[in-house]
Amino acid sequence: MSAWSERKLIDKIRQGAKTENSDVLLSIGDDCCELQTTACTLISTDTLVESIHFDTSFHPPYLLGRKSIAVNLSDIAAMGGRPRFVLLSLCLPEDLEWEWIKEWLDGALAILQEYDCILVGGDTVKGQSLVFTITVLGEPLAADKAVYRSGAGVGDSVWVSGMLGSAGAGLALLNYRKNHSDFSIPSSMQDLLDAHLNPSPCIELGQALAASGYVTAMQDISDGLATDLAHLCKASGVAAQIQAGQLPRHAALAEAADHLGGADNDLILRAGEDYQLVFTVKKGAAQPFMECMEQSKQNITQIGTITEGKGVFLEDNDEVAEISFQGYEH
Amino acid sequence: MSAWSERKLIDKIRQGAKTENSDVLLSIGDDCCELQTTACTLISTDTLVESIHFDTSFHPPYLLGRKSIAVNLSDIAAMGGRPRFVLLSLCLPEDLEWEWIKEWLDGALAILQEYDCILVGGDTVKGQSLVFTITVLGEPLAADKAVYRSGAGVGDSVWVSGMLGSAGAGLALLNYRKNHSDFSIPSSMQDLLDAHLNPSPCIELGQALAASGYVTAMQDISDGLATDLAHLCKASGVAAQIQAGQLPRHAALAEAADHLGGADNDLILRAGEDYQLVFTVKKGAAQPFMECMEQSKQNITQIGTITEGKGVFLEDNDEVAEISFQGYEH
Repeated sequence: MSAWSERKLIDKIRQGAKTENSDVLLSIGDDCCELQTTACTLISTDTLVESIHFDTSFHPPYLLGRKSIAVNLSDIAAMGGRPRFVLLSLCLPEDLEWEWIKEWLDGALAILQEYDCILVGGDTVKGQSLVFTITVLGEPLAADKAVYRSGAGVGDSVWVSGMLGSAGAGLALLNYRKNHSDFSIPSSMQDLLDAHLNPSPCIELGQALAASGYVTAMQDISDGLATDLAHLCKASGVAAQIQAGQLPRHAALAEAADHLGGADNDLILRAGEDYQLVFTVKKGAAQPFMECMEQSKQNITQIGTITEGKGVFLEDNDEVAEISFQGYEH
Repeated sequence: MSAWSERKLIDKIRQGAKTENSDVLLSIGDDCCELQTTACTLISTDTLVESIHFDTSFHPPYLLGRKSIAVNLSDIAAMGGRPRFVLLSLCLPEDLEWEWIKEWLDGALAILQEYDCILVGGDTVKGQSLVFTITVLGEPLAADKAVYRSGAGVGDSVWVSGMLGSAGAGLALLNYRKNHSDFSIPSSMQDLLDAHLNPSPCIELGQALAASGYVTAMQDISDGLATDLAHLCKASGVAAQIQAGQLPRHAALAEAADHLGGADNDLILRAGEDYQLVFTVKKGAAQPFMECMEQSKQNITQIGTITEGKGVFLEDNDEVAEISFQGYEH
């Protein structure tokens, strides 16, 4: 195994950045890249640090490359936008194996291609530890169509996509196995591992929700529903009450939680990294909204209601408890 | 002294990101920021790593904050563009002092204000070492006015702005003093220290050069003239011959080089980080170009000529030597 070199890395990045897209006026190899943009640009940047955001001892580099991009695309999904261009800043230890970062890049390039997104620039530097900073540029479906966190109103219904807690359970299982080499994860829990190792950004769903015209506020779930819904409520100046029994979960979640000695609702509300969407639907419009979304066959669940006040409250067996900002802090 | 906290840091960043500019449709506090953009967007991203790109033992945090932004704005200057928006990703050790990062941010915010540039987003994470990733968005003066590296033609003249080697000499002096506590840097060399600690991006000059219509290729000097002019020549498919006697230098450079036991031309050609511009002027147009630039009172010097072939060659006392890519590798 040999260490990476800047020349090999930049050659591979340039190869991966090749595009026929005429909106890329100038790609990698100059002081800046130059892009043809629409009137409205969405931008987000995220930094992932080894041993805080990922564990290379069990995260295969190809899937980590995919995930590093996915979590950034998820921010565009949360606005109902279309991702277009990506910049990569890679800070890599000098002794990092070339094979490892090559596979990381292959994973990153594969997901970019999948979402029709183009690598247009970045930087590579040497550092003590692995740090990936990814910047993604996108555009809303139309100039006034981006969905903010701040639009929720009293009486709106609260919804989430997909299943929650899976990624948190997957991570906990992988950490458990790391420390208990005799433990073998049951195959029934494979989806939970996948949710942590290889999440997909809800790009298509985000766009369908924005296009529906019924969605008043939206964000992605990266720090756990308890925290992310609290952000949405704070930005909107409202509170939310959600029903424990309605929170969508994977069939294997309870078994995994049992095994890990915790509660499945804890994973759902607090573990984070599901990269699903939490959103609100205009008061009284749940029925036409559902009819509108049936056509796109998306997996969404109503979990509660927006109320006056502030904070997020969980109703469980007739007991109501505040859970605002109890999610995971990265 | 107390360590930084994410809450205090984000409060300060939000405060610094406040703007009346109506092109910022949505600022910090959502999944993305949303910007009103022109048809053409310039983007660049740079990562600065402690002990590779900067030394906190002698770089005051306020000036380091300024410089971290300056080196990014310099990439926009090199396209003849106007910087508009900046995203900051800060990876900070847990025990970093709040005062230190507060001053870093004050410096960063001051230079952003100076260049009429708006902080619109970013990320803050904990990590083992200081890593700053800055992404800057700008726009060319007009849709077809960005100056690339690739436009130099045979017979064009080669020019640089400012004085070269100052930043390299300043860094070498600071490193020398770090290891020789009895050494005091002569006040005649203060400009050299400033060139390393507090460089300014050539935004105004870059725009004037792009607007002149005579400049065929341009880039900034970050890795030393020997490397950066070689990049420009490679991108343009040409060679360059430059005259040692014409390289502009500070009055104190020779004395500093003597003291450091090196040659001043080495600092000029190879030390880098001057963040001046190297550019080419259309064949036969040096005279009208100079007249055009006289009005803007910019400090620029003709140093050589573009020729056929490849590589960068230095003519010194009738001897010609190739110096391509002999600059500093970060």
